[in-house]
Amino acid sequence: MKISARNAIPGKVKKVKLGPVSAEITLEVARGIEIVSVISATSAKALQLKKGKRAWALIKASNVMIGVDH
Amino acid sequence: MKISARNAIPGKVKKVKLGPVSAEITLEVARGIEIVSVISATSAKALQLKKGKRAWALIKASNVMIGVDH
Amino acid sequence: MKISARNAIPGKVKKVKLGPVSAEITLEVARGIEIVSVISATSAKALQLKKGKRAWALIKASNVMIGVDH
Amino acid sequence: MKISARNAIPGKVKKVKLGPVSAEITLEVARGIEIVSVISATSAKALQLKKGKRAWALIKASNVMIGVDH
Amino acid sequence: MKISARNAIPGKVKKVKLGPVSAEITLEVARGIEIVSVISATSAKALQLKKGKRAWALIKASNVMIGVDH
Amino acid sequence: MKISARNAIPGKVKKVKLGPVSAEITLEVARGIEIVSVISATSAKALQLKKGKRAWALIKASNVMIGVDH
Repeated sequence: MKISARNAIPGKVKKVKLGPVSAEITLEVARGIEIVSVISATSAKALQLKKGKRAWALIKASNVMIGVDH
Repeated sequence: MKISARNAIPGKVKKVKLGPVSAEITLEVARGIEIVSVISATSAKALQLKKGKRAWALIKASNVMIGVDH
Repeated sequence: MKISARNAIPGKVKKVKLGPVSAEITLEVARGIEIVSVISATSAKALQLKKGKRAWALIKASNVMIGVDH
Repeated sequence: MKISARNAIPGKVKKVKLGPVSAEITLEVARGIEIVSVISATSAKALQLKKGKRAWALIKASNVMIGVDH
Repeated sequence: MKISARNAIPGKVKKVKLGPVSAEITLEVARGIEIVSVISATSAKALQLKKGKRAWALIKASNVMIGVDH
Repeated sequence: MKISARNAIPGKVKKVKLGPVSAEITLEVARGIEIVSVISATSAKALQLKKGKRAWALIKASNVMIGVDH
């Protein structure tokens, strides 16, 4: 499937933290750049996410804010 | 200010596309990794975003989905 | 690609409305049920969305609210 | 109240899964079409959501992505 | 309708800025506190938003970030 | 850091509710106006949020819906 999310960044799962409803997934997408995701625990299990697995961080452009230093 | 968004990725503005209400900002955050953001045109002007300026992509973890190849 | 978004609802494009930065896409997912999406105009063109094309509405569970009648 | 969310889809609660902070609600909105929502546990209780109750899935258009098959 | 969004803040429309697809609405919710919303132009028209009209800002708790000063 | 989120509302932490993955933070931003946020438990700890601490509610304009009474 091709999706409209403008950001699809490939990486590798570094950490999976499972709660009863939510799960926190940490991806490493480049040396020193990690992206943290919170998805449902059900999805984390369905995608069989575990340390070392290749995965994509998918982010809709309207969910990205911009910050600048003073 | 320190913010709760788990993802704050530093980069450089590569492109600014202004519409009447929205603006699309492209950041390069690593060689070959770009992040596209849609913010309000007002914010884009307030932050004086333009090509080459250093900026951060700020993304709440609950807005990051995960994809895996089959 | 398999994605973590809990909601992937198949439908058919009913309307595409293009703005300079954003685009509004209306999908019909069942008789009498339409889902409206706002994505970037760039994505709408990249996915070659047009009336009649089959497409999926993809929605992260944390972006769905619930309402009940009094 | 009338709200700006473009998508208000009526359905029936099929499942409620409560965690300490979050809750996962599954609505059936048409034969074979379910929509999953993650809201706060507090809201789930306040709305007295339970299996069989009629409810609406409310989704802002900017939170709907589009996918197309290759 | 009663909705799961934890934040429903009453106010008065202060400004409406219409684009071709999106609209920017500014609400004043308390003396000196404004909340800015971007919704679809279609919704802005459907709700007949205009300066002085009473309206609510509705925000899902998972879309609120927290910042603290150093 | 200056950020693109149009809404940065100062307040005081009134309640912190920690779950295993998520945390719910209640801010009081004006007399009688509270804003509830769900962030990751990790962020809540990193920001050392506790009752009485000054903090900001940060909300992207595209995440604010509008409601009007009939």
